[in-house]
Amino acid sequence: MFKVNEDYLKLPGSYLFSDIAKKVAAYQAANPDKSIIRLGIGDVTQPLAPAIIKRLHEAVDEMADAKTFKGYAPDLGYEFLRKAIVKNDYEKRGAEVYIDEVFVSDGAKSDSGNIQEIFDRNCRIAVCDPVYPVYVDTNVMAGRTGTYDAETGLWSDVIYMPCTEENNFAPEIPKETPDIIYLCFPNNPTGATITKSMLQDWVDYANKVKAVIIYDAAYEAYISEDDVPHSIYECEGARTCAIEIRSFSKNAGFTGTRLGFTVVPKDLKSSDGVSLNALWARRHGTKFNGAPYIIQAAGEAVYSDEGKAQTKEQIAYYMNNAKYIYNGLKEAGYTVSGGVNAPYIWLKTPDGMKSWDFFDYLLDKAQVVGTPGSGFGPSGEGYFRLTAFGSYENTVAAIERIKAI
Amino acid sequence: MFKVNEDYLKLPGSYLFSDIAKKVAAYQAANPDKSIIRLGIGDVTQPLAPAIIKRLHEAVDEMADAKTFKGYAPDLGYEFLRKAIVKNDYEKRGAEVYIDEVFVSDGAKSDSGNIQEIFDRNCRIAVCDPVYPVYVDTNVMAGRTGTYDAETGLWSDVIYMPCTEENNFAPEIPKETPDIIYLCFPNNPTGATITKSMLQDWVDYANKVKAVIIYDAAYEAYISEDDVPHSIYECEGARTCAIEIRSFSKNAGFTGTRLGFTVVPKDLKSSDGVSLNALWARRHGTKFNGAPYIIQAAGEAVYSDEGKAQTKEQIAYYMNNAKYIYNGLKEAGYTVSGGVNAPYIWLKTPDGMKSWDFFDYLLDKAQVVGTPGSGFGPSGEGYFRLTAFGSYENTVAAIERIKAI
Repeated sequence: MFKVNEDYLKLPGSYLFSDIAKKVAAYQAANPDKSIIRLGIGDVTQPLAPAIIKRLHEAVDEMADAKTFKGYAPDLGYEFLRKAIVKNDYEKRGAEVYIDEVFVSDGAKSDSGNIQEIFDRNCRIAVCDPVYPVYVDTNVMAGRTGTYDAETGLWSDVIYMPCTEENNFAPEIPKETPDIIYLCFPNNPTGATITKSMLQDWVDYANKVKAVIIYDAAYEAYISEDDVPHSIYECEGARTCAIEIRSFSKNAGFTGTRLGFTVVPKDLKSSDGVSLNALWARRHGTKFNGAPYIIQAAGEAVYSDEGKAQTKEQIAYYMNNAKYIYNGLKEAGYTVSGGVNAPYIWLKTPDGMKSWDFFDYLLDKAQVVGTPGSGFGPSGEGYFRLTAFGSYENTVAAIERIKAI
Repeated sequence: MFKVNEDYLKLPGSYLFSDIAKKVAAYQAANPDKSIIRLGIGDVTQPLAPAIIKRLHEAVDEMADAKTFKGYAPDLGYEFLRKAIVKNDYEKRGAEVYIDEVFVSDGAKSDSGNIQEIFDRNCRIAVCDPVYPVYVDTNVMAGRTGTYDAETGLWSDVIYMPCTEENNFAPEIPKETPDIIYLCFPNNPTGATITKSMLQDWVDYANKVKAVIIYDAAYEAYISEDDVPHSIYECEGARTCAIEIRSFSKNAGFTGTRLGFTVVPKDLKSSDGVSLNALWARRHGTKFNGAPYIIQAAGEAVYSDEGKAQTKEQIAYYMNNAKYIYNGLKEAGYTVSGGVNAPYIWLKTPDGMKSWDFFDYLLDKAQVVGTPGSGFGPSGEGYFRLTAFGSYENTVAAIERIKAI
């Protein structure tokens, strides 16, 4: 008689963004005449850049001819893509990463969900609070988080690092020692960043206590300030303690095209000398069969001169939205942060309103969808996330509506 | 101090097809003048069909325009694709499957590797022997298989169902009662099939002992005989005991394009009433972000009239190769099976030669790459798999070379 994974049953409710989608659908059904503006989920709206489209068409044509047709991809991903990644994302920043340390995947969500698998079930994780839900949820599903306290919204075995107005949304070294530390900068959901020297402190700490840092750098392309690191490998010693996860979703509009990668340095080993690179290679080879060839080809085009110029323009477009939201909300009297090195604006709900109440309020009064801060963790309560990924027109309209409430 | 998942360390060697790739690369490096014919890995060689190429181009163009651009896909996959699947793969065969029971994925390998996650760690699995390595390896990684005996090649906690010449490569109901039963028909690697009434016996047995069947139907498009079922849902009672995994890799040449799906009926529940559909939905929503829109659009084109006609032709092409291999090897005095409802030919090595010895022998004498039967499990020892997925020219050349040894 089969039994199910009981750890799955511990998860309270469903995935945050599925919940929001359902709420919005219900509102729309009840109010079919209302036009809703979605600044909730971090989904891009600008079309793929011309250089990427061109390469996609070419790659499709290659698939039409037996001579250029591609079957199964190499385990780690095509070398042309891994070379472009190493050259553009790492070498240019003086970060030491080799092509056999880059694992191409179908996106950062899969990787940040799956990476925990290569660790022992008793490893203790530390997460920022608020945080991207996938880090915690996937550890819940693996039985690593203890019991859930519905009152506080906290898991007994998770080490939380609150990120609030008080500490400028930057996590502090926790009192208890974690085995795995999830960091994400520029941060989702707060839009906050930390300086290179602050990140270096984390790397030094991880090396000291022999913890591993899972560094989610999905939003690095949005960094506008000089002293904010784009990769954790810009820090000395990161090769012995850090895994980095990257995405093509936000820098090149691949949310519906699906491509990402994870870097696992060969110098990263357990105290028994087990190579995490080898373990991840084993997972990659056994449970995954590569991203589609045509998508990997498109990924290479992101690094072409045209691709770089065109995606830079898209990012500027979104960052212009971010600025508009940031300034508009300030003018409207809100307390706002983020939006400078990240496409996310993090605002304090007015009058101490609960996050989900503010979600309902904004949907009802302005037909604007955002994401309740409490959906990202208990310290997100009383906060709210808006994204800059809408069209400029919708962004302006949303802010006008919010101002008019 | 972090620790690694010790279960990963129990895996002997690396993934079978990675091993073969390394061996072949080493041989080619040592013999740069020799032309190698690969009939090893089950990778297709025919280009994507024109109807699929056309739809891919259209979908790429949709991604180039903000009005038709697609971001994150719906959790279960686009409804247009799930509708086409239900209509063509199930309704037409009188099998009851609904669109919210179909989960679109990046391929059957991912699904067959990930599906074990929703079950308890103490569930006992039963597998055919020989078997597609992913089923066992992913259960090893989850700590479900006990200890490995290098002598016998068996895991202490796995129930093996030998499939050999003696039982016509059809598994028998095991003496010990499993919780999860992996079945794959048409079979990889043996190319064997079972009749609908034999499959009905498995469904009845699973319902009786409350086991779940993971039914891998990746090769159903190759079925040529009438009494061989294409889906387990053709059997009565399968909705309460079976999950079915399907692939676009072999029926439409998507090995490098990546698309598959898994059906989890809503009637399939644990003894405590937990819905496996809900658990898989939770995994899908939390650790995966959908297959690319353009690939899902291409998947729909497989079900268009042109797509069906064109992919049918490709399958006929490969099955013609299968026939050629089958007959050629018979003429050369080999004992051969498979190849009638499957693109795999399963042969007995001559003179009781070990499978890996025959691999080396064939590579060395004929520069033909196959897959050692023992790589699929201990009962595969003394057998060897050749695939029909090469070009006709290469297939003919390979058989001529084998005959000439």
